[in-house]
Amino acid sequence: MSAPKKVVLAYSGGLDTSIILKWLQTEYGCEVVTFTADLGQGEELEPARAKAEMLGVSKVYIEDLREEFVRDFVFPMFRANALYEGLYLLGTSIARPLISKRLVEIAAAEGADAVAHGATGKGNDQVRFELAAYALNPDIKVIAPWRLWDLTSRTKLIDFAEKNQIPIAKDKRGEAPFSVDANLLHTSSEGKVLENPADEAPDYVLQRTVPVEQAPNEPEYIEVGFEKGDAVSIDGEAMSPATILTKLNELGGKHGIGVLDLVENRFVGMKSRGIYETPGGTVLLEAHRGIEQITLDSGAGHLKDSIMPRYAELIYNGFWFSPEREMLQALIDKSQEHVTGTVRLKLYKGSARTVARWSEHSLYSEAHVTFEEDAGAYNQEDAKGFIQLNALRLKLLAARNRRLKG
Amino acid sequence: MSAPKKVVLAYSGGLDTSIILKWLQTEYGCEVVTFTADLGQGEELEPARAKAEMLGVSKVYIEDLREEFVRDFVFPMFRANALYEGLYLLGTSIARPLISKRLVEIAAAEGADAVAHGATGKGNDQVRFELAAYALNPDIKVIAPWRLWDLTSRTKLIDFAEKNQIPIAKDKRGEAPFSVDANLLHTSSEGKVLENPADEAPDYVLQRTVPVEQAPNEPEYIEVGFEKGDAVSIDGEAMSPATILTKLNELGGKHGIGVLDLVENRFVGMKSRGIYETPGGTVLLEAHRGIEQITLDSGAGHLKDSIMPRYAELIYNGFWFSPEREMLQALIDKSQEHVTGTVRLKLYKGSARTVARWSEHSLYSEAHVTFEEDAGAYNQEDAKGFIQLNALRLKLLAARNRRLKG
Amino acid sequence: MSAPKKVVLAYSGGLDTSIILKWLQTEYGCEVVTFTADLGQGEELEPARAKAEMLGVSKVYIEDLREEFVRDFVFPMFRANALYEGLYLLGTSIARPLISKRLVEIAAAEGADAVAHGATGKGNDQVRFELAAYALNPDIKVIAPWRLWDLTSRTKLIDFAEKNQIPIAKDKRGEAPFSVDANLLHTSSEGKVLENPADEAPDYVLQRTVPVEQAPNEPEYIEVGFEKGDAVSIDGEAMSPATILTKLNELGGKHGIGVLDLVENRFVGMKSRGIYETPGGTVLLEAHRGIEQITLDSGAGHLKDSIMPRYAELIYNGFWFSPEREMLQALIDKSQEHVTGTVRLKLYKGSARTVARWSEHSLYSEAHVTFEEDAGAYNQEDAKGFIQLNALRLKLLAARNRRLKG
Amino acid sequence: MSAPKKVVLAYSGGLDTSIILKWLQTEYGCEVVTFTADLGQGEELEPARAKAEMLGVSKVYIEDLREEFVRDFVFPMFRANALYEGLYLLGTSIARPLISKRLVEIAAAEGADAVAHGATGKGNDQVRFELAAYALNPDIKVIAPWRLWDLTSRTKLIDFAEKNQIPIAKDKRGEAPFSVDANLLHTSSEGKVLENPADEAPDYVLQRTVPVEQAPNEPEYIEVGFEKGDAVSIDGEAMSPATILTKLNELGGKHGIGVLDLVENRFVGMKSRGIYETPGGTVLLEAHRGIEQITLDSGAGHLKDSIMPRYAELIYNGFWFSPEREMLQALIDKSQEHVTGTVRLKLYKGSARTVARWSEHSLYSEAHVTFEEDAGAYNQEDAKGFIQLNALRLKLLAARNRRLKG
Repeated sequence: MSAPKKVVLAYSGGLDTSIILKWLQTEYGCEVVTFTADLGQGEELEPARAKAEMLGVSKVYIEDLREEFVRDFVFPMFRANALYEGLYLLGTSIARPLISKRLVEIAAAEGADAVAHGATGKGNDQVRFELAAYALNPDIKVIAPWRLWDLTSRTKLIDFAEKNQIPIAKDKRGEAPFSVDANLLHTSSEGKVLENPADEAPDYVLQRTVPVEQAPNEPEYIEVGFEKGDAVSIDGEAMSPATILTKLNELGGKHGIGVLDLVENRFVGMKSRGIYETPGGTVLLEAHRGIEQITLDSGAGHLKDSIMPRYAELIYNGFWFSPEREMLQALIDKSQEHVTGTVRLKLYKGSARTVARWSEHSLYSEAHVTFEEDAGAYNQEDAKGFIQLNALRLKLLAARNRRLKG
Repeated sequence: MSAPKKVVLAYSGGLDTSIILKWLQTEYGCEVVTFTADLGQGEELEPARAKAEMLGVSKVYIEDLREEFVRDFVFPMFRANALYEGLYLLGTSIARPLISKRLVEIAAAEGADAVAHGATGKGNDQVRFELAAYALNPDIKVIAPWRLWDLTSRTKLIDFAEKNQIPIAKDKRGEAPFSVDANLLHTSSEGKVLENPADEAPDYVLQRTVPVEQAPNEPEYIEVGFEKGDAVSIDGEAMSPATILTKLNELGGKHGIGVLDLVENRFVGMKSRGIYETPGGTVLLEAHRGIEQITLDSGAGHLKDSIMPRYAELIYNGFWFSPEREMLQALIDKSQEHVTGTVRLKLYKGSARTVARWSEHSLYSEAHVTFEEDAGAYNQEDAKGFIQLNALRLKLLAARNRRLKG
Repeated sequence: MSAPKKVVLAYSGGLDTSIILKWLQTEYGCEVVTFTADLGQGEELEPARAKAEMLGVSKVYIEDLREEFVRDFVFPMFRANALYEGLYLLGTSIARPLISKRLVEIAAAEGADAVAHGATGKGNDQVRFELAAYALNPDIKVIAPWRLWDLTSRTKLIDFAEKNQIPIAKDKRGEAPFSVDANLLHTSSEGKVLENPADEAPDYVLQRTVPVEQAPNEPEYIEVGFEKGDAVSIDGEAMSPATILTKLNELGGKHGIGVLDLVENRFVGMKSRGIYETPGGTVLLEAHRGIEQITLDSGAGHLKDSIMPRYAELIYNGFWFSPEREMLQALIDKSQEHVTGTVRLKLYKGSARTVARWSEHSLYSEAHVTFEEDAGAYNQEDAKGFIQLNALRLKLLAARNRRLKG
Repeated sequence: MSAPKKVVLAYSGGLDTSIILKWLQTEYGCEVVTFTADLGQGEELEPARAKAEMLGVSKVYIEDLREEFVRDFVFPMFRANALYEGLYLLGTSIARPLISKRLVEIAAAEGADAVAHGATGKGNDQVRFELAAYALNPDIKVIAPWRLWDLTSRTKLIDFAEKNQIPIAKDKRGEAPFSVDANLLHTSSEGKVLENPADEAPDYVLQRTVPVEQAPNEPEYIEVGFEKGDAVSIDGEAMSPATILTKLNELGGKHGIGVLDLVENRFVGMKSRGIYETPGGTVLLEAHRGIEQITLDSGAGHLKDSIMPRYAELIYNGFWFSPEREMLQALIDKSQEHVTGTVRLKLYKGSARTVARWSEHSLYSEAHVTFEEDAGAYNQEDAKGFIQLNALRLKLLAARNRRLKG
């Protein structure tokens, strides 16, 4: 790869990406444009502008992408009830493609030939950033300084920062006890004190969720409204996608909901342990399942269930912008046309449970299911034929096996 | 179907199956053998003997099947992390094949040409009983009185019982407010007051689980040991399968764990709403996932995940004794050879959460995953090639699409 | 089911459906409307009008549905490369939903409360007709005389016809040596002389395909053009869907292509043996695969492959008009956006083989694949990292297993 | 990677692997052991011994692995009816794991720390060799000279050979018009004159198959016997696995059967075009499907079909020695317990067609399927209930949709 001439850097304003910024300038003598996105990570972004300008970047992009993030990435994913390895709500995975998309778009607008990110060579995020970037622009260069440089220890990083007049916050001189990533969907914590999966994670890891013992002693009920598979209201009040997720985060976090201690399989081949907090997402998944229960028929639901693990794996592995993810999305979206209605949930001490659901689009038929007289809605005699023909092949098998033994 | 000469009846000793017993005798003039199984439903079985004898049966079978039930049905199913429609632990479904198996075996031993069950024509249980019976004996007759007789109201049933000197417990004269099924894995409640899925189920429905608000205010920690995918100990104490499940039920029930309010899709085509209590099973699923996290590699785990919905659907629909369930079981069992180790769980207010896990069989490599210097265990440069080749087809796609537009 | 007042009958004009027509009139005293469709079965339809009028029907519908059949049913199915049980091109299955759709639409237009078909109680077609009808109108009555009447032998049918002044063609008095169904996609033959799967089918069974030994001794080359997954031209000449399939049938039939001797599993639980002739469809499938080879990327192609068996099973079982078939169709159609280009095929002695393919939409990159110097298109060193990270979990597994043994 | 001390080289005796042999010696100063396997590629192996000794290797292994190859690799794969991308019989893919297995075993026996292969950096074979090696010995070094050296042109290779006294066959000085790989299952040809998928492959590419026009004008019938899914006899004569495949290759090759022109997707991300000849394998696949048709029930068959693409992809990608391939194999093998019987095939002008099949293990029931009176084997009335309950959810959907519109 020839040296880049102009690079768009995914820039948080923190120490690490500031070091990357300076390293790009010194290593390649290239122009750097920074891009800082508000994905709901809960940090002030304006300081990033001042810092970037101080470090001599040619242009600063700061954007609030929260609505786009939830509307075009989080919600489509939740239509699928996506869980990676049965449990993980994919909070980090789903944010990366959007960042890459904007990096590539800004590169096009600014005439840059490269983008850069601050993900390490051991994790999934490098894969997600880069696959998304290449899928959107096959000629883009992607620079991953953590895989390139020799700043392989905290000491070397601090040295480099000091030599290059990069301001170092007091609490960044030492090692953090664990590493954190956050956006509107979740906070993940991993590494260091969390590395041994045989040790329980300490409560102080939690960033946005109340430890469950400290959650309120009284349950709280909420009603989430859906239209075509997406949440559109809470307690009857219509809200934008990002507003809904923000509100669900508050509610979930208050009740200690959505904390997951997981050992997962990274795409790069190793296992890692993370503590994930997804308060709003956990409530949303439960609610979405609740409304699907009455509005989706079994054929549609079972098909969705059967392809979900693959869909989740694609997102986890960084293939959001791939034909197969888009094909699965077409299938999933097709299923959601009638997923409209309201779910009532009980939030209490770490759990969100569906307790009721109703909808104009409901397929539930009390006339059919009732234990009472059903006025001919269902003919119990039909069950005999249904069973007989479902049994036929089993009978033929049993007869064959008996014949061979006998 | 010609009239049966000798019938083995799945007999609970309750009013409904006593009416069936008498109806079989009067309708067909046939000999009846009763079979009553202890699957952990928590009822005395000996009264069933006296009652059956009083009603004139030729032979009474009463058997404790709890160990067989857990060892050969529940545990194999839990190896798959089976959940029907994402949430349901299949507590009723998994008990039916065992009952049918014994009915058919007893029929063979007794020279009976038919078996009979007390499931109605609207539900899944008729299908499960009958598919299992036909799969084990293609020539057996299966009699389902609820699909045949005209005792279609409570009044007619009581009349029939009175005319036939069948004792009627005082509380059985009126309608029960809902219908209950129970075994060692779960209790299900459905019908009547639960029929409207827009109404929250009242707490009095719960049979074996403490309402979550009344659960202890202190969390409790337990350690579940596994060998080859099956639970073998609690807190270091080795126990038999049924003993473990019994103990987990106590622990789970005490902490309000495993209550599910579900609208599900029945195999016979309608939706129904049930309240399921699976305290021990819920803890067991969480623990099993916990131990798989460190002992199963991603290839095995993702394959299991991808076939699980189909496996669960087969069990739900009554195809336990089918080639495809056995094929999937072979696949699943193959994956469990190293699923051995210990999981530590925190039980609290309705939730069971894995907080730690360890194993001699662990695939977790702190050497690889560490944020610290890894002494060459992992070469970060490999990630570049990994990403480049995973990206290649995406680049070719992007180049093609750009070429066509340009 | 109460007696129907007005019935729309799927009417071929042949003896069997004429008997059904009369039976409906006599059994129910109801008005009958006939519907006769040209799906390319290769029979004159106008005689059906005269016959129906003679038998006293209130209205006669005769429609040429060939274009709709190919455009909206056959072509969407071929986008999926659908094969039932690995081999069968679903020629009968795909025609039934369209017939049911028109029956239900005509019933609505004519104020009829029922539709009727001539499929027997042992086959798949009854299921396909009826599931489609119910999916389009949940209140329609479907009458299947073969499951209802007592005309259970050829003699009784002939008697009924004679008593009711139904004309009987000379060659219909005796039993046909096998049963035939045909439409533009295929001809199927089954029953009687074909019932023993251990006997080779005689050549005289073939209706539209030359026995392969009699096919021309010279191969013939054709070029099939595709747009978005559908065939649009032959040898550069644009044609309508039905015209293309007709032309491919001529070509395929001439070269003895597309004859299949299959023992398949019916949805109703038994195995049956059929001889299928699908000359044009066989050529089309080969050509479609050929064009996908260069225009579809592996992610899309492998996903399609993995869901194809389920898609084919749904069509075979009669679930064309179901949410899950429509969801899968959305996924498949999404994949076909760039399946545009031309395939050259060699037709010879029973085989159609792709020998060349080209497209503006091709993803094939000679620059990448070449054995020659590739000017940097592909960096062979990337393969090392790709392999190392794909191997990592396998290495961890091997190390674990060695550790436990050692 | 530190330099290897002793290397086991997969050695064909040809020019390329002789150059590798010498290069290993000169590059690393290491000891080299050669391993040459007879997998049925149809070449004399003893010359490889003389040549290896002349080049100064410390030990020569020459082994006939044909029986192991067919018994433990080819036959298990054929139990699955495995086809990659719908068409490819995986002839190259399936041979690589066995070679790696022996390389690793010999390395252990000889105290070697590395193995080496002659696959290039663009293809799939490097991946297959290396994944298999690492899965069997996580500490082994794998050396892939084509990814390492600078002998990047024919001229440089010839120069190196001449400088190192490596004998060069006359016809090896120039470029071959295409590249060939062969074993008992297939011959593949690719590259050079075959690189443009828009050009028909010339007949002279064919190595073991008669051009179809030159195949006999008379069909030939054969009978293949199976036991538990594996071929065990031809025309009633019992034979060993490798003998059967050899015989089927002769028969298939003579009739021009099993030639495939394919553009496929390599695991490393690019498309490539190959001409594959799999005469015996093509006959075997057809025969295996034929016997499964009568001995496998639909539940087993459809499950196998649904996982086949994934199984084939695993083998193609080099994951033979992976938990997921072994899990799928367990599933497949479970299905084959009754796949025993005989298939009669007609071989003619490029095609092998099943024309008859019979078995003691047959599930085909003429009693059920017959068009004649079936003596009560099948009750046509059962179809009504079967259809009604399969239709129920579709009716509920239609009623819901109508209600919302109305």
